[in-house]
Amino acid sequence: MDISNSDRAKVLVQALPYIQKYAGKTIVVKYGGNAMVNNDLKDAVMSDIVLMQLVGINVVLVHGGGPEISGMLKKIGKESRFVDGLRVTDGETIEVVQMVLAGKVNKDLVQLLESYGGRSVGLCGLDGGMLKAEKLSDDLGYVGEITKVNTEIISNATSNGYIPIIATVAGGENGEVFNVNADIAAARIAAEMGAEKIILMTDIRGLLRDKDDEDTIIPVVNVSDVPKLQNQGIITGGMIPKIDCCVEAVRRGVGRAHIIDGRIPHSILIEMFSDEGIGTMLY
Amino acid sequence: MDISNSDRAKVLVQALPYIQKYAGKTIVVKYGGNAMVNNDLKDAVMSDIVLMQLVGINVVLVHGGGPEISGMLKKIGKESRFVDGLRVTDGETIEVVQMVLAGKVNKDLVQLLESYGGRSVGLCGLDGGMLKAEKLSDDLGYVGEITKVNTEIISNATSNGYIPIIATVAGGENGEVFNVNADIAAARIAAEMGAEKIILMTDIRGLLRDKDDEDTIIPVVNVSDVPKLQNQGIITGGMIPKIDCCVEAVRRGVGRAHIIDGRIPHSILIEMFSDEGIGTMLY
Amino acid sequence: MDISNSDRAKVLVQALPYIQKYAGKTIVVKYGGNAMVNNDLKDAVMSDIVLMQLVGINVVLVHGGGPEISGMLKKIGKESRFVDGLRVTDGETIEVVQMVLAGKVNKDLVQLLESYGGRSVGLCGLDGGMLKAEKLSDDLGYVGEITKVNTEIISNATSNGYIPIIATVAGGENGEVFNVNADIAAARIAAEMGAEKIILMTDIRGLLRDKDDEDTIIPVVNVSDVPKLQNQGIITGGMIPKIDCCVEAVRRGVGRAHIIDGRIPHSILIEMFSDEGIGTMLY
Amino acid sequence: MDISNSDRAKVLVQALPYIQKYAGKTIVVKYGGNAMVNNDLKDAVMSDIVLMQLVGINVVLVHGGGPEISGMLKKIGKESRFVDGLRVTDGETIEVVQMVLAGKVNKDLVQLLESYGGRSVGLCGLDGGMLKAEKLSDDLGYVGEITKVNTEIISNATSNGYIPIIATVAGGENGEVFNVNADIAAARIAAEMGAEKIILMTDIRGLLRDKDDEDTIIPVVNVSDVPKLQNQGIITGGMIPKIDCCVEAVRRGVGRAHIIDGRIPHSILIEMFSDEGIGTMLY
Amino acid sequence: MDISNSDRAKVLVQALPYIQKYAGKTIVVKYGGNAMVNNDLKDAVMSDIVLMQLVGINVVLVHGGGPEISGMLKKIGKESRFVDGLRVTDGETIEVVQMVLAGKVNKDLVQLLESYGGRSVGLCGLDGGMLKAEKLSDDLGYVGEITKVNTEIISNATSNGYIPIIATVAGGENGEVFNVNADIAAARIAAEMGAEKIILMTDIRGLLRDKDDEDTIIPVVNVSDVPKLQNQGIITGGMIPKIDCCVEAVRRGVGRAHIIDGRIPHSILIEMFSDEGIGTMLY
Amino acid sequence: MDISNSDRAKVLVQALPYIQKYAGKTIVVKYGGNAMVNNDLKDAVMSDIVLMQLVGINVVLVHGGGPEISGMLKKIGKESRFVDGLRVTDGETIEVVQMVLAGKVNKDLVQLLESYGGRSVGLCGLDGGMLKAEKLSDDLGYVGEITKVNTEIISNATSNGYIPIIATVAGGENGEVFNVNADIAAARIAAEMGAEKIILMTDIRGLLRDKDDEDTIIPVVNVSDVPKLQNQGIITGGMIPKIDCCVEAVRRGVGRAHIIDGRIPHSILIEMFSDEGIGTMLY
Repeated sequence: MDISNSDRAKVLVQALPYIQKYAGKTIVVKYGGNAMVNNDLKDAVMSDIVLMQLVGINVVLVHGGGPEISGMLKKIGKESRFVDGLRVTDGETIEVVQMVLAGKVNKDLVQLLESYGGRSVGLCGLDGGMLKAEKLSDDLGYVGEITKVNTEIISNATSNGYIPIIATVAGGENGEVFNVNADIAAARIAAEMGAEKIILMTDIRGLLRDKDDEDTIIPVVNVSDVPKLQNQGIITGGMIPKIDCCVEAVRRGVGRAHIIDGRIPHSILIEMFSDEGIGTMLY
Repeated sequence: MDISNSDRAKVLVQALPYIQKYAGKTIVVKYGGNAMVNNDLKDAVMSDIVLMQLVGINVVLVHGGGPEISGMLKKIGKESRFVDGLRVTDGETIEVVQMVLAGKVNKDLVQLLESYGGRSVGLCGLDGGMLKAEKLSDDLGYVGEITKVNTEIISNATSNGYIPIIATVAGGENGEVFNVNADIAAARIAAEMGAEKIILMTDIRGLLRDKDDEDTIIPVVNVSDVPKLQNQGIITGGMIPKIDCCVEAVRRGVGRAHIIDGRIPHSILIEMFSDEGIGTMLY
Repeated sequence: MDISNSDRAKVLVQALPYIQKYAGKTIVVKYGGNAMVNNDLKDAVMSDIVLMQLVGINVVLVHGGGPEISGMLKKIGKESRFVDGLRVTDGETIEVVQMVLAGKVNKDLVQLLESYGGRSVGLCGLDGGMLKAEKLSDDLGYVGEITKVNTEIISNATSNGYIPIIATVAGGENGEVFNVNADIAAARIAAEMGAEKIILMTDIRGLLRDKDDEDTIIPVVNVSDVPKLQNQGIITGGMIPKIDCCVEAVRRGVGRAHIIDGRIPHSILIEMFSDEGIGTMLY
Repeated sequence: MDISNSDRAKVLVQALPYIQKYAGKTIVVKYGGNAMVNNDLKDAVMSDIVLMQLVGINVVLVHGGGPEISGMLKKIGKESRFVDGLRVTDGETIEVVQMVLAGKVNKDLVQLLESYGGRSVGLCGLDGGMLKAEKLSDDLGYVGEITKVNTEIISNATSNGYIPIIATVAGGENGEVFNVNADIAAARIAAEMGAEKIILMTDIRGLLRDKDDEDTIIPVVNVSDVPKLQNQGIITGGMIPKIDCCVEAVRRGVGRAHIIDGRIPHSILIEMFSDEGIGTMLY
Repeated sequence: MDISNSDRAKVLVQALPYIQKYAGKTIVVKYGGNAMVNNDLKDAVMSDIVLMQLVGINVVLVHGGGPEISGMLKKIGKESRFVDGLRVTDGETIEVVQMVLAGKVNKDLVQLLESYGGRSVGLCGLDGGMLKAEKLSDDLGYVGEITKVNTEIISNATSNGYIPIIATVAGGENGEVFNVNADIAAARIAAEMGAEKIILMTDIRGLLRDKDDEDTIIPVVNVSDVPKLQNQGIITGGMIPKIDCCVEAVRRGVGRAHIIDGRIPHSILIEMFSDEGIGTMLY
Repeated sequence: MDISNSDRAKVLVQALPYIQKYAGKTIVVKYGGNAMVNNDLKDAVMSDIVLMQLVGINVVLVHGGGPEISGMLKKIGKESRFVDGLRVTDGETIEVVQMVLAGKVNKDLVQLLESYGGRSVGLCGLDGGMLKAEKLSDDLGYVGEITKVNTEIISNATSNGYIPIIATVAGGENGEVFNVNADIAAARIAAEMGAEKIILMTDIRGLLRDKDDEDTIIPVVNVSDVPKLQNQGIITGGMIPKIDCCVEAVRRGVGRAHIIDGRIPHSILIEMFSDEGIGTMLY
């Protein structure tokens, strides 16, 4: 990239209206996919997050960690079993899930963000009683459905100048721990905090009219059109839970929900600081 | 225990001068040993901690987790190796250490304390750049010596009404993670926060003049007498690091350091709320 | 009382749920009867009050002082005359009432509470225009009925960390001073402050079904059952104004009103910190 | 007084520089003598005080009450006995002193000031442990010498917008109450609060060179000249303790001390809001 | 003026109820006419304003400056032209208007007020986007009608202890500047700030029943009687816009609007601090 | 400028370390020269300023206005006369200077900055008694030398979220107004506010070793080398006062002083947000 200092200044100035628009607002980023695996992409996400905080945005980072969980389970000789895309979670598994998400993935992200000058704190749904859940189905074991969200500890972090990074395990009524869907958790947290937008980082361009042709991306979707798009077979497969999460967020009051392609470096900033944005936006 | 309501009231009233003495002060509890394994003892510690917070004391809980780490390492087929009582920590081991301490032990304690009505938050040395360390010795791998302590994130937690629970892994200059001694970490944190006292929970009565006779407990030790006691062979074996930690804390300005017997239920409260105290006190 | 340190700790821990329940709440104690005369009982009340403040309860102490008033009147050679249990109060008498209540009884209590480490301030209904009253009946002279309650000066005291102790004389529209019923004043102050409960200290066990048999105590009364109990002759004599005061408090929004036996040491703590409580509770 | 509205406005405007000079400062007024007995003078003092508060001055009113005490003692058939101008104070007497000062004189002033729209609170040296004293001499009984002054409760009152009115009884180490000199108490309180000035209201013009000729008033005295004036016999009799009190205040850091003639209506305002002032000023 | 100190004190005390009435309230003064030209009158106004601030009133000073504008236009050889009493304002004229009002008249007043010890800040309708306007009529050029009022910058000034002085030019949507009527601007600002009263300084006694006889002044007018008074020919000529401004203020919620005679020294204080007031009051 | 969204994001991210470095710091910009005349340059400066505020920098804008003053003087038929580069300023001239600087140039900048979304307030040295001056020389009339700087009103503006824009006229002891050098005023304000840096916008590249060759720019100068550079004839002519101003600022504690070329668009941002910076830096 060979850009003169003069052009650099112009680029900064052109970001002005976007910065003004989001200053003081809360943005929840659901972090996942390739952007959490590839080191260059990770670096890009971290710098995006720190920049957002510096220009006055309250960023909340919610993450999952499926591959790391599977890796660890394999290490202890336990096979991962899935039903309808959900991990069957026995007592030994939930221990690993909690350990890997809240102890490894979460705290590694904290350390990485701190190395970029972003003061951050790693939380999970157990801290301050943030996420409460109950058993989703007897077949799935410790897979939970969120019943209560208390974001006080998250707000304390942002108002003290820290970026909260959140691992999505939740507490049960009787001291159990539940594995909960990270997308849904992010949507619920965004709604509870009155977030301006939620951004889901995925490994696809966005919602495609023809799933084999990236040029058929649908940039904007009104949530009321979602049933029709499902009937038309445009929302299918792995896209269903992503869209569901966006609908959940918008229905609960979040201004906008974005499905963006985490494989593109700085896709968050591109979404935030350009008119055309990137990926698919639901409102 | 068959105590009349009238006697109960008297007991409460007799705790008054101790409560007045510690209100608004910071007490660091280094939690470990049997008190972290036995469920009844765990329950007793949790209620002690919550009570202390309610009567206006800022409690900070620092914990280790050796047995859980060894258990997990064994599960993945890795043997624990120790040199001079320190765990040799290769790259795979430090990952497990971090995961178990910050993800399992720490967050389990958070959930347990919350179940007692104590609002708490689980932190590790990586959060907010709390603990910085460098390699202690090439032979030991990722075993670190603390070089910097920043307790801002701990103070934020207490002033927001949360009990901070701290897992003692530390960050390195180049993004590494180090396993650091939890006793020393507790001593450093206590000193940095200007704590009134630090309480080390152990599995012994205290410092014994004759290690086989619990009746020979030495209740009070001036830190300047420590070298003499070492020469006399009274401070030996596993007691050496405990005493070192106490000396470190007192030398850095903590008022008093206590070695108490965690096997006795409510030993913390007994220490805090009686004249005679319990265990050995260094000043 | 021979209780081991271990049992003492257990007692403290068992008080935990009660402390959690009342932390941050306001409790008004109407102090009177034997508990204000007997020195041991006085000491017990003072320590109860200080303990309650330390565990985060806003305690407000309202007192009368009939015996001291009568004593002083006698000293100046003036006989006390009562109509329907109310002291006939001429100009000279009201001066003595004010002097004894606000200058002697009140400030003595302040000094006693301070000696227990409780920072306190002695107020009367004239301070900050707290209590306004008008003449109750021409026959009674300066006996007043409360017309206005302004608790700002009380709230200032509690929020500055002082325990307010209140003598119940009230100001009139034209600069007169009125003697007002301390029970009613306490009920009105409790209501105005949104108190959690009001506790009336008396010299009886509580409301008795058979007034000669303390075993027939009625532990709980719904205020809507009061008329029936009056018709049945269970609420009679000196109990009538006590019950009226409780009804007044509950009707105006105070959660619960308690009639307790001040002759039992630490009866306040027993009421606050046990499940069964003590005396009779109206709600 | 027949003054046009136009001249009234001019008078207000001419007070401007004085108001600017004292805004935000603390002024302690020692109230006593005729100004506390005569109703017109009392009214004038009250309005002066309220006006001072309104223009941003923190006024603290300290009072004695000798005549009322003597009156009450007489009523109970007890003769007042004085040694060197100090009242011999046995146990019965100190009770009356406390009662009259803190319960009668003090609270009457509160009510009077409230009637002028000045929010006020009546305190004595026992409240918040404000004044501590020890026995002055065995011959005098409960006459005390001030050993400690804690003005926190006074500052709380002024910062909450109340005018503190203070009766000068003090607490002893063992629960006794002492009668302390009100002038000295005012001087000590003024010093402790960093007051700009202390004003002593008396029944004389000020310090007179010839005590029989009011025209010989000495308007300004440097405290270092006091010994000389004593030697010259100019400071004698009742003037000695007044001057001592002023010297005490100035020596402890109060800017200026004034002895003014309380028999002149609004003498406080005249002192505060004119160049020439009134009475004698020590600096 | 030969008034004794004693009478001065009485005058101050008699101002007490008025000061109490207005403490903490906002008063908008529209400054203009002779009181802005004559030096003695200017001095009187400044001292009135500073005094009002000192006794706790939030004063906001709004001014015009017709004569100075005309003077400057004449200097640059430009004739002032008026249509229906409104200055026809071309591009060159509005530049002069802005310069003279915001740069000369405004800042001169700031300096004068500062010389009286009143901390003040000179603002115009452009600062902080305070006044927004649109073109009133094509014939009049840059004469604007106020469309939006934002008083945040004024409130910041008063809460920081400064007296805001305001020049009434307003900003347009496209970067133009408009000359707006200062009376109306004052009325709108007063309404927006929830002012207690607005005072218009004029060169007449008030509203006169017979415009040639100052003794026929109408002291009080209910705004609902204004149409009748217009029909009767009592409100005519230059009085029409003054009355309109008062009606505007009262209709928008300002308690009272006063038309006072600025030629009388200290007319503001006379209005504020006497029962009979001065001039005509609309409510 | 044809830059992809991806490259734009990279540019933003590369500004991160600079933003982190200056967040919370104060930067004083002395605005002048071509950058104040050319409309495109003006727009660029405004957007630079707003951007700096948004990323957490406290920007203070100080301006002169020589050309506008000369223009206005010419309009009223008054010739500008200079002695040693200083405008001879008689009574009529200083009126014009004040009017043009504080009323025209200043408020126009306020309006322009507001149109970019930057909340701003226009102040001059008279507001809040910010700048005090005395006559520099009898020959120059109302040309002043700064004697006192009070930046409280500037700090209030920044802490309330406004960008202060400052016209450099100053008040005299006797109500006169003085024209003071804007560069020096900026340096004094920067020093008083503990600014991190001061940036002087000029119409030259910076300090040139050979004044005819822009490639000989000296990027960094230690203030201790200034005398030598003067002796060598490198600092000459119009550069002397610029360098003097920088030396003044650095000597009084400002970290760095920059002379930058205001003819280059966004030169402020280039200076702030690149390693190489622009122009000449003194430290």
